[in-house]
Amino acid sequence: MSTFMNKDFLLTNETAKKLFHEVAAKMPILDYHCHLSPKEIAEDVSFENITRLWLCDNGAGDHYKWRMMRACGVDEKYITGDAPDKEKFMMWAKTLERCIGNPVFSFSHLELQRYFGVNEMLSSKNWEKVWDICNEKLRSPEMTARKIIENSGVTLVCTTDDPADTLEYHKIIRDDESFKVQILPAYRPDKAMILEAPGYADYLKKLETTAGKSIGSFAELMDVLEERMEFFHEMGCRASDHALINVNYAEATAEELEEIFQKAVRAEALTELEITKFKSAFLLRTAKVCHRLDWGMQLHYGCIRNNNTPQFAKLGPDTGYDAIAPEPATQQLGKFLNALHCAGHLPKTVLYSLNPTENAVIVTTMQCFQGGVAGKMQQGSAWWFNDHKKGMIDQMTTLAADGVLGNFIGMLTDSRSFLSYTRHEYFRRLLCDLIGQYVENGEYPDDEELTSRLVRDISYNNAVRYFGFNLETVE
Amino acid sequence: MSTFMNKDFLLTNETAKKLFHEVAAKMPILDYHCHLSPKEIAEDVSFENITRLWLCDNGAGDHYKWRMMRACGVDEKYITGDAPDKEKFMMWAKTLERCIGNPVFSFSHLELQRYFGVNEMLSSKNWEKVWDICNEKLRSPEMTARKIIENSGVTLVCTTDDPADTLEYHKIIRDDESFKVQILPAYRPDKAMILEAPGYADYLKKLETTAGKSIGSFAELMDVLEERMEFFHEMGCRASDHALINVNYAEATAEELEEIFQKAVRAEALTELEITKFKSAFLLRTAKVCHRLDWGMQLHYGCIRNNNTPQFAKLGPDTGYDAIAPEPATQQLGKFLNALHCAGHLPKTVLYSLNPTENAVIVTTMQCFQGGVAGKMQQGSAWWFNDHKKGMIDQMTTLAADGVLGNFIGMLTDSRSFLSYTRHEYFRRLLCDLIGQYVENGEYPDDEELTSRLVRDISYNNAVRYFGFNLETVE
Amino acid sequence: MSTFMNKDFLLTNETAKKLFHEVAAKMPILDYHCHLSPKEIAEDVSFENITRLWLCDNGAGDHYKWRMMRACGVDEKYITGDAPDKEKFMMWAKTLERCIGNPVFSFSHLELQRYFGVNEMLSSKNWEKVWDICNEKLRSPEMTARKIIENSGVTLVCTTDDPADTLEYHKIIRDDESFKVQILPAYRPDKAMILEAPGYADYLKKLETTAGKSIGSFAELMDVLEERMEFFHEMGCRASDHALINVNYAEATAEELEEIFQKAVRAEALTELEITKFKSAFLLRTAKVCHRLDWGMQLHYGCIRNNNTPQFAKLGPDTGYDAIAPEPATQQLGKFLNALHCAGHLPKTVLYSLNPTENAVIVTTMQCFQGGVAGKMQQGSAWWFNDHKKGMIDQMTTLAADGVLGNFIGMLTDSRSFLSYTRHEYFRRLLCDLIGQYVENGEYPDDEELTSRLVRDISYNNAVRYFGFNLETVE
Repeated sequence: MSTFMNKDFLLTNETAKKLFHEVAAKMPILDYHCHLSPKEIAEDVSFENITRLWLCDNGAGDHYKWRMMRACGVDEKYITGDAPDKEKFMMWAKTLERCIGNPVFSFSHLELQRYFGVNEMLSSKNWEKVWDICNEKLRSPEMTARKIIENSGVTLVCTTDDPADTLEYHKIIRDDESFKVQILPAYRPDKAMILEAPGYADYLKKLETTAGKSIGSFAELMDVLEERMEFFHEMGCRASDHALINVNYAEATAEELEEIFQKAVRAEALTELEITKFKSAFLLRTAKVCHRLDWGMQLHYGCIRNNNTPQFAKLGPDTGYDAIAPEPATQQLGKFLNALHCAGHLPKTVLYSLNPTENAVIVTTMQCFQGGVAGKMQQGSAWWFNDHKKGMIDQMTTLAADGVLGNFIGMLTDSRSFLSYTRHEYFRRLLCDLIGQYVENGEYPDDEELTSRLVRDISYNNAVRYFGFNLETVE
Repeated sequence: MSTFMNKDFLLTNETAKKLFHEVAAKMPILDYHCHLSPKEIAEDVSFENITRLWLCDNGAGDHYKWRMMRACGVDEKYITGDAPDKEKFMMWAKTLERCIGNPVFSFSHLELQRYFGVNEMLSSKNWEKVWDICNEKLRSPEMTARKIIENSGVTLVCTTDDPADTLEYHKIIRDDESFKVQILPAYRPDKAMILEAPGYADYLKKLETTAGKSIGSFAELMDVLEERMEFFHEMGCRASDHALINVNYAEATAEELEEIFQKAVRAEALTELEITKFKSAFLLRTAKVCHRLDWGMQLHYGCIRNNNTPQFAKLGPDTGYDAIAPEPATQQLGKFLNALHCAGHLPKTVLYSLNPTENAVIVTTMQCFQGGVAGKMQQGSAWWFNDHKKGMIDQMTTLAADGVLGNFIGMLTDSRSFLSYTRHEYFRRLLCDLIGQYVENGEYPDDEELTSRLVRDISYNNAVRYFGFNLETVE
Repeated sequence: MSTFMNKDFLLTNETAKKLFHEVAAKMPILDYHCHLSPKEIAEDVSFENITRLWLCDNGAGDHYKWRMMRACGVDEKYITGDAPDKEKFMMWAKTLERCIGNPVFSFSHLELQRYFGVNEMLSSKNWEKVWDICNEKLRSPEMTARKIIENSGVTLVCTTDDPADTLEYHKIIRDDESFKVQILPAYRPDKAMILEAPGYADYLKKLETTAGKSIGSFAELMDVLEERMEFFHEMGCRASDHALINVNYAEATAEELEEIFQKAVRAEALTELEITKFKSAFLLRTAKVCHRLDWGMQLHYGCIRNNNTPQFAKLGPDTGYDAIAPEPATQQLGKFLNALHCAGHLPKTVLYSLNPTENAVIVTTMQCFQGGVAGKMQQGSAWWFNDHKKGMIDQMTTLAADGVLGNFIGMLTDSRSFLSYTRHEYFRRLLCDLIGQYVENGEYPDDEELTSRLVRDISYNNAVRYFGFNLETVE
């Protein structure tokens, strides 16, 4: 029996142990998609206590954990409410001991081990001791935002940024020579694309202000956005990112698009088809610029957000009320990619569906558009609700069986927390275990040169090459 | 190699063996959803022979087994026809030996082991010997309906009952002090809800008779049903149950509902939307009462019934001609639960889809409505066609990864047979094996106090607490 | 650790090893569905080099491999272009070493082992040596089309043939007494059914020529096709095969069908419903004849073909641009089978969906129509993109859990290559491993008589009996 989360955690065979400890563990981290705050990095913030870092700070926090607390019947005052931080931590500890088999259980304990030196399980029995240890540690100068990033072996981080953002904090970080990690923006124009959202016209005004141009038409919107993309590019951006409910596609004339745009500005009701036409055109134009700038375009879809209306009214978005869309989400992916390909500007593309049953559909569809660079079309690593052992193994196994695992650009944290780099460790352990299994089952030869290269590539090098970052690969 | 279904059946690690033999095996059984006949319990029936108990008795019987016999080309006369019972048993034995990997194979042999002392595999070689042993045993006074229930360690059973039922047999059982097991009704108003079924008006008349009130409108129907729910509640009922094809949702005005109701009474054709509006309103009102009475509301959906028209004409429903619905069935679950939540009366809810690919959709959707009691929203245990090793493991693994396994209310038999309590054993073996694997992989600590509590809770205590039955938990 | 693809490849338990080596490996091969060229068999062709056999020959070739090369960024000139064969082989070797976990990796190495005596992994390091060994071997008289078939232990092959085909090469093969393997046609009238395809009228002319009759109406078309089926039957055909996007079903009058037919002949636009009506009627009539002739009807569906328009224009169909359909494909299977059953002529049917999430839907639906012969309704072996370890195990596990594994007719190559018989070996290894696991877990008894019979039946005998070929079973 393995002891609890020891050095060989998740490594079930000797090849895997060797690959992880001698290869994967030594690779740097490139986190090409996360939700860290550039401001907090620029200001190199520190954290008052473990509740503020882990659970809830001024209404924001880790909504994965919130869901689990609610599922255990914990009163909202201990979750997003005004209970003292220490009591919130206690309630989290009591929740956690019920969460056998949940990735947050594993991630939390990896963080306790790597960042706080706590190796036992957090529970209702020891929570007060752990509270003290963590808070003591958080007072050390090693536990500021920047120090955590540096000490985690990170070479580059992509944040998630709105076109209306001036990227002022990115400039501050870039110009500060004392901090060597590259913190780059990623371009996420959701607010400009989701025309059916309330406040669309207000958003456009904000974008006009940042851009210093007026936006009176769809054509002008897209021109302004192209300029913003060029500015982002200068700031080191190499990826766009787009949140969709599902991948639909419909063509429209320029006139239709202008009409739809004007309706959106006037906050008039739009049909599903109008929304699809607008977003299709928006993405086609954005993809064209991605292609020209040689960016990777990421599509995140298959999510129904804000399902609980009363809680949305109280707490806003990203508070633990999202779910997997129950209907096919990859629906018209083939048509969409084909439209881009026919137009001659299909960019490098990374696809993430929240529905784990769509793995094979995604991989077999994207394989129809490969060509040019290795792994041009990528299925992204198991996302959000699938970011767990079974989810990751399923994604990698399907990619291996229907695509080419060796070209996979691997893991990202997708996180708001500075402690989430342990997710890369979790991923690499599973990756090494999987490769070790193929070897030990006799499905791939025990050729250390080849298997080590696969591990180095999927852990780090493929992402370096794919996005074209200014980084050395590690051979 | 393990010998055939020995004491460590399905237990692949030492932690699992310990948890099963020392904890799970000792827990009582609470069977909160089954299709046993209250009449047969009241009359404490006994069984003429093993064919009558296992295969077919007066046209009714185990349609799981029938499907497998048909798949092996067995003539219908040996299934539902007039062949002698002994020959039917022989044909079943010949079928069974082809059914490697089928849960009915495992369940049948667990029943032979636990109730008849037969430890070898039933086959075309030994069927006659097994026939004799079983029938001999069935003549013992230990093998009446009540004795089987008592000797299986059952403390409480919920049957499935129509609102038009007088619950007379439940009264007889309740008033008989010689029988200590609680046999409670569960409220299943499908015949009142499925307005598109032939004979809807006739059903309403039957309901009028039982209720002693006239039902001339939708409003009156729902008032009568609320009274029936109160009567069921007095009789110990703590759960409702509803069969749907899929979870759709549409709002309607009171006037619309009355119009739809009248059309149904006149057996006029209804549109899909009218049916959805009616059922949505029906369920909303029912849910409101469930919420007030603190019942658990169970939704069973994702099934297409009676696919084979000629056989339906000959044999009626529940004869082995049902299948998993091929299209998304969890479709509008989020909207439906949100409507209940907005109205302030979302009851405790248990969700069962017949489509095994919807596990993650269900769990992530229901997590958006947690709060109040621990595990208020539940995914039910792997149902019907998924009630097998892979189905149960998938359900528990997804629940663990996207929800909180520790709050799971666990297994039910969903059976028409008095021998099906071995399915709880089967479930508990898999549960202990899964928890043992998490421990032995180092994913959860080897803390006997915590793991034993998880096993006790999921095997029994969670269901006691969830439904609020008059039972002690076992600590 | 197992060495690379050694004699116990994929066999993880002792029971499996025994079953494979002593039983499965000795069974002949019946390949009831493939795409071999009858002409090449009749002419007993040989192969210039391994690139011609494996990768590309006059524009045709193995598009599974092409997809993987494109995914690795290999230039099209090394795939379908005019690069020298030797360079193409080098690029394939470089691609292959990235393809850990891909079935083509396993299939390629099984072929190298069994047909060329190459036991090491093909890689960028040894490709030139392997190139020489293979080409040397290909010059031997043992490596002609017929010799490969014979030496692979094949007793019978079904090719895939159009009704307009005269079957002249089948006649030549049949009449050549020096070649003992039965090479039979299978009836695939896709071109007559897919009325929306360009060139439908031209196809009908071709069919008229072969049939020596004019086809002026839908009724005449179906009469001509029935005659062709009878001719195919005389030529030994025992199976039809149909490619659909999904299983839809709609009724139509004879008049409607004639109108739709005339529109198709005139190449007018057709609605989705018209297409569904036509195909439903086409399949119903075809099924009726299948039933009368006691053929097995195969339905292949769930595929979206030719997703990449520019590449389709350049290379045509079957060049690596197909994908799994993202929406439910088994949709109206129940209605379709019920229509056939009600009409009294439901034939033996084999169902293949390309979407691996539909396994349980297919098996539970088909079980509603079992009866008559054992395993009348079959789920076909994991198809195309699912033809890999996980895909095969999932298919067999679901079939076992929701149906009767013992009746399964097992593997087929579905291949254009003479070397693909190793896929039967791959399948049998997984089958034996699965049965071995059931035994060694104690889920099925260690009864060699029963387990050997299961292996013999699923490897070979069930297919012999199912299609009624003129072959002895091997007991």
